Amino acid sequence: MKVDLNADYGESYGNLKVGEDERILNFVTSINIGCGFHGGDPTTMRKIVQLAKIHNVSIGAHPSFPDLMGFGRREMKIEEFDLENILIYQIGALEAMVEIEGMEIQHVKPHGALYNMAVKDKELARIISRAIKKINKNYMLVALANSQFAKTAEDEGCRVAYEAFLDRRYNSKGELVPRTVKGSLIENREEILNQLERMVLYQKIKTVEGGEIPIKFHTLSLHSDTPGAVELIQSAREKLDKLGVEVCPLSQIILL
Amino acid sequence: MKVDLNADYGESYGNLKVGEDERILNFVTSINIGCGFHGGDPTTMRKIVQLAKIHNVSIGAHPSFPDLMGFGRREMKIEEFDLENILIYQIGALEAMVEIEGMEIQHVKPHGALYNMAVKDKELARIISRAIKKINKNYMLVALANSQFAKTAEDEGCRVAYEAFLDRRYNSKGELVPRTVKGSLIENREEILNQLERMVLYQKIKTVEGGEIPIKFHTLSLHSDTPGAVELIQSAREKLDKLGVEVCPLSQIILL
Amino acid sequence: MKVDLNADYGESYGNLKVGEDERILNFVTSINIGCGFHGGDPTTMRKIVQLAKIHNVSIGAHPSFPDLMGFGRREMKIEEFDLENILIYQIGALEAMVEIEGMEIQHVKPHGALYNMAVKDKELARIISRAIKKINKNYMLVALANSQFAKTAEDEGCRVAYEAFLDRRYNSKGELVPRTVKGSLIENREEILNQLERMVLYQKIKTVEGGEIPIKFHTLSLHSDTPGAVELIQSAREKLDKLGVEVCPLSQIILL
Amino acid sequence: MKVDLNADYGESYGNLKVGEDERILNFVTSINIGCGFHGGDPTTMRKIVQLAKIHNVSIGAHPSFPDLMGFGRREMKIEEFDLENILIYQIGALEAMVEIEGMEIQHVKPHGALYNMAVKDKELARIISRAIKKINKNYMLVALANSQFAKTAEDEGCRVAYEAFLDRRYNSKGELVPRTVKGSLIENREEILNQLERMVLYQKIKTVEGGEIPIKFHTLSLHSDTPGAVELIQSAREKLDKLGVEVCPLSQIILL
Repeated sequence: MKVDLNADYGESYGNLKVGEDERILNFVTSINIGCGFHGGDPTTMRKIVQLAKIHNVSIGAHPSFPDLMGFGRREMKIEEFDLENILIYQIGALEAMVEIEGMEIQHVKPHGALYNMAVKDKELARIISRAIKKINKNYMLVALANSQFAKTAEDEGCRVAYEAFLDRRYNSKGELVPRTVKGSLIENREEILNQLERMVLYQKIKTVEGGEIPIKFHTLSLHSDTPGAVELIQSAREKLDKLGVEVCPLSQIILL
Repeated sequence: MKVDLNADYGESYGNLKVGEDERILNFVTSINIGCGFHGGDPTTMRKIVQLAKIHNVSIGAHPSFPDLMGFGRREMKIEEFDLENILIYQIGALEAMVEIEGMEIQHVKPHGALYNMAVKDKELARIISRAIKKINKNYMLVALANSQFAKTAEDEGCRVAYEAFLDRRYNSKGELVPRTVKGSLIENREEILNQLERMVLYQKIKTVEGGEIPIKFHTLSLHSDTPGAVELIQSAREKLDKLGVEVCPLSQIILL
Repeated sequence: MKVDLNADYGESYGNLKVGEDERILNFVTSINIGCGFHGGDPTTMRKIVQLAKIHNVSIGAHPSFPDLMGFGRREMKIEEFDLENILIYQIGALEAMVEIEGMEIQHVKPHGALYNMAVKDKELARIISRAIKKINKNYMLVALANSQFAKTAEDEGCRVAYEAFLDRRYNSKGELVPRTVKGSLIENREEILNQLERMVLYQKIKTVEGGEIPIKFHTLSLHSDTPGAVELIQSAREKLDKLGVEVCPLSQIILL
Repeated sequence: MKVDLNADYGESYGNLKVGEDERILNFVTSINIGCGFHGGDPTTMRKIVQLAKIHNVSIGAHPSFPDLMGFGRREMKIEEFDLENILIYQIGALEAMVEIEGMEIQHVKPHGALYNMAVKDKELARIISRAIKKINKNYMLVALANSQFAKTAEDEGCRVAYEAFLDRRYNSKGELVPRTVKGSLIENREEILNQLERMVLYQKIKTVEGGEIPIKFHTLSLHSDTPGAVELIQSAREKLDKLGVEVCPLSQIILL
């Protein structure tokens, strides 16, 4: 079994920081780099691309609604053409950064509200999928495992990577419990590693309703901006290694 | 004789407009498109690229200091690495826009204070030149004719296009009189066409001190956001045609 | 009969303009000044306050979602405390501008999507109303006539001014037809003046469904950024004068 | 002897943080709150005002150049009227925040490049001073001790508070060594406490050239965003207490 381990990394904005720690790059195989609309100013983007190169980590674009003040976590309603251009703009900016460093973009993972809305809004999922395909049909689109977002992206002809969250709770519909709900983020290490084990060994996940649902995934995600994130990601990586799972970038899992 | 006629076009920001008029595209051969940092939101950029395609006009990136409030006309002091990344970011965003429309970028013309400072500040000229060359060594860098900016860019190995302004006054050093100086913008059509004729026929330009200096140029520029800009640009184009000058994009003037 | 005539004025952002024309200030009695989040940079705000003083026009704050790129016309979902602070911030900034010019704020009119969402979303209407009352209980809140927004604001103890639009179409529920719907903006002068006459003489308005609904209002609004806006506003003012309606600021209509 | 102890506090921007720690409020007597142009989104501003109230700490506005990406540390050249309005806007926004919490603004301390440029540029010092006086002549302007900035502000009729930095190095002209110079920030606790002791006991400060200059000050400043800042500020406070210095807000030192 192969799986990618991803984290958001590169969302600071100049001197305004999200709590990122370079050691994360020792444990993940892919990162999602902010493209300036919720975080990720040009110099942060460039530096993180350079770090990714050094650490041999694959790069994803992490485009967002234009919402620096709300860190891209506020739902916005944007016309299709505008949203398409907002995606092209951000991804294009990152493409120039990776090109200058001799790297390339592996995947696109929409950030925050854009991701979460796409999980529920088929039309939005469609708009995002078409935009990514138009930009570069080889770019993988990272979408929530089990979701209509992932299905829509496949219907639109995208290369889709299913994502499962190690430190988020799920409901019985397979949706993430919103971050605004208390307890939606799992902070206890044991629980996180248990969720990981259940996912990896049985392709199952426990729900807040108390049941269990099947889950199929290519990439596992952990938040990088919580206290103790580095240690958690390290633990997850060690657990995966111990379970005999090959941890590698998406490009080695979903082949062209 | 061949010359390019360029104008800034694509600097509006959503519903916030600079007075642009599509008819300009009938007369110019190159345009400079804002890349979001002083104007040019993603949808404006995309639409202008589409229009440039329709009108067969060549495209230049028009990157700026990050200064939407001051329209990029405020001098800023930015560290080299930051400025390089600010240029990569903006140009990359436009590259993605042109690629999706099957177009390409012909040149880069720094906007506003970035351009004007580079004329006087050799170190800044060097930083910009190196960044452009790093991004794509085929991109021409549009720099003020006769200036140290142009010379520095050549020394750095850039393809440089010399620019002369039809509606700006020059001093005896060959510098543009700053926009903050009253009368620095020539608004009278006859004067503009006279300046054009002197440039084209004699490669000379009158200075505010009353003298005349030689000028060598590849592209002529007119402001696109002044009242009556369309008519002026049309007049300039007609005058050039009448004088037997071949008006064509820079890519047909400065060959690879 | 007394009525206020208002227009948005002061939404440009530095060199990025909405098509505003100072002559409007000869005809309206109140203006709504952008506070920087969709338009209205500090200098524009200050200049418009100075102009309002010269023209003896009353001033309203026109706060918005933080959305310069979308001109505040994009729906956003913002937590209550954040939204309250976003309103305080913008209104406070304008308060300082009016104070320095010896003027004062008469009213607050939420801009764009914030206004339109409040018409439909009672919880949002409540949040806005409480914020305005907290900032200054004497500030009038301009809300759509006939709407739940207006009713909620009154229930919360705000001084509410009912607003009717001369150049927008209504549906049978008394709602504005969204701007994204073709024809939602009335552009024909005769139709606008007819709508005005029906409103003023009979307190009625025609709906897109073909019927008629009653309307009670304190202020009439016309868009200031459409072509021919000055002439339309002048016509509306002359029509009101001719009909014997006293056109005066809200502060003379809704007394403390 | 009385002295104020101040720190920048309230410069985060939504989820984008500078490393601030609430414990700082136990030790300082005044804080400088970002007003949105380099940091300090509306909710951060409001929360910090609430915290200042709880901790009985005096509030200063900390306005900046409009430069979120550069955290207000980039020099900008802004026309007088624009800069005045930029100051009014930011300070007005904070005024509304403090008013709603029943607090008031004690002082204004320009942030970053705005402060540093004013130290060297008399014309800029004059513009800032006049603006502050116009906004509220009771607001104290915090300016570098010994500087022409402080002198100019006094000449313009401002109430001026002299500021000395505990963790910054000075040159023999009494200027701060720029942050871009390695070693300009003193990070060793003993050195900082020594600098404090010399300032308090002898009104002297050592310079990087090896000499000593006299210094007269009303407020002492420590950076709040460096690692170990809380402990440093606590140490400084304890040292001041031990030396028998009364640590209190500026309003109790510079009386009306």
